Amino acid sequence: MTTSLPRLTFVLGGARSGKSRFAEGLVTAQPGPWVYVATGEARDAEMAARIAHHAARRGPGWSTREVPLALADAIRAGMGDAQAMLVDCLTLWLSNVMLAARDVEADRAALLAALEVARGPIVVVSNEVGLGIVPDNALARAFRDEQGRLNAAVAAIADTVVLMAAGLPLTLKQPGS
Amino acid sequence: MTTSLPRLTFVLGGARSGKSRFAEGLVTAQPGPWVYVATGEARDAEMAARIAHHAARRGPGWSTREVPLALADAIRAGMGDAQAMLVDCLTLWLSNVMLAARDVEADRAALLAALEVARGPIVVVSNEVGLGIVPDNALARAFRDEQGRLNAAVAAIADTVVLMAAGLPLTLKQPGS
Amino acid sequence: MTTSLPRLTFVLGGARSGKSRFAEGLVTAQPGPWVYVATGEARDAEMAARIAHHAARRGPGWSTREVPLALADAIRAGMGDAQAMLVDCLTLWLSNVMLAARDVEADRAALLAALEVARGPIVVVSNEVGLGIVPDNALARAFRDEQGRLNAAVAAIADTVVLMAAGLPLTLKQPGS
Repeated sequence: MTTSLPRLTFVLGGARSGKSRFAEGLVTAQPGPWVYVATGEARDAEMAARIAHHAARRGPGWSTREVPLALADAIRAGMGDAQAMLVDCLTLWLSNVMLAARDVEADRAALLAALEVARGPIVVVSNEVGLGIVPDNALARAFRDEQGRLNAAVAAIADTVVLMAAGLPLTLKQPGS
Repeated sequence: MTTSLPRLTFVLGGARSGKSRFAEGLVTAQPGPWVYVATGEARDAEMAARIAHHAARRGPGWSTREVPLALADAIRAGMGDAQAMLVDCLTLWLSNVMLAARDVEADRAALLAALEVARGPIVVVSNEVGLGIVPDNALARAFRDEQGRLNAAVAAIADTVVLMAAGLPLTLKQPGS
Repeated sequence: MTTSLPRLTFVLGGARSGKSRFAEGLVTAQPGPWVYVATGEARDAEMAARIAHHAARRGPGWSTREVPLALADAIRAGMGDAQAMLVDCLTLWLSNVMLAARDVEADRAALLAALEVARGPIVVVSNEVGLGIVPDNALARAFRDEQGRLNAAVAAIADTVVLMAAGLPLTLKQPGS
């Protein structure tokens, strides 16, 4: 794509749906340099492998900021000389917030407020996790509910929203619609 | 929306996808009063909180009927002076039917027969639960299969079908298509 | 549908989403006879019931090949006098490959290479399994990742891709797009 990005793009998708790759493509179609805001922390070998897999795919032109929790602050701080920002992803951020026993509602409100005033263009990636069977354990159900609330809130303020499946985007919302 | 509803609208979505809110918006865009058919039972604190959360969002103009099992009867009984009916949701109803060890196939057939002859407009809400990994336990797999069969059967007779994700509707079927 | 099928059609969907039925309809709208490539093995009563349920729905005009593992070979062997091939489904095939502790990456590459040179028309069915909560166990997470990679790879070379929900198709990709 060579078209310019709107202020806020939200890329939603399942595991291995190609959402990070698609989001990176949106950003690198803009003039660089670009900022990659990574919310994942390499807490175990599986996560470290996932992070390395993503990082290997990105080429030069990116600067990376590791932001496991203070996402609202990072967005408010702006992107300096960079021309676009990618936040990957809200699911790991929410997981970090809940594991740290922080106030999810307050952190969500701060994030939304930061996104609403950001200059952009920003592309935000998140997982859709609500389309399977109800999880057995209460923590997973609580996470699923919070993820759903967060996704709906970000989608409401985004200009463009796409849902990825099998590497292909389905448009849920377009600028002006 | 100010457009009139078709006879039968089916709103499908994941957990916290905004499906109840969207369905309520479709109904309250019609002249009132409206009937809310609640299939959920407050069997525990988590469920009670969910029901209270939904009820608090609905304003005046609604009359509520709690119908955990006899959904076909409730639909056949009609809506009296009300102008539209919302059934929220088929997932809790199916769960109640299976927990009561009733004949799922017979209850599904009765529900479909009632929906087919209802005057409408009726908006029916249900969960899509089949897009995750295969559940570990046989009961969850059986529920997933029955939910899928029920959703496809209702979608087949509905005039409009939408799939919700992050609070946004994707149209799967439109009147006349 | 009476339109002719493109060379490769990919039908993706959840459990009980109507994907097999929809795929069969695409194939039987073509002149017969047709080849049904079944990847499922009746390892237990639940699976045997599922296979019998699918087989009962298919009428005459079909020849069936049971191919739990050697799917690339079966596709390279062609369809003889048949006019179209249905592969149902990649999820059972991937499960067989992983249970047999085979090299998933090599088997996937061989399958993709076979699909790329096949004459067609071929309709391939697979499950979308990545839209639920992260599974508890590592094997399920690994399966989910491999299924997602496989689905994206097949979607990338398919002419048409549809995502099924409640028996209804959402088009993700069309020929020429």
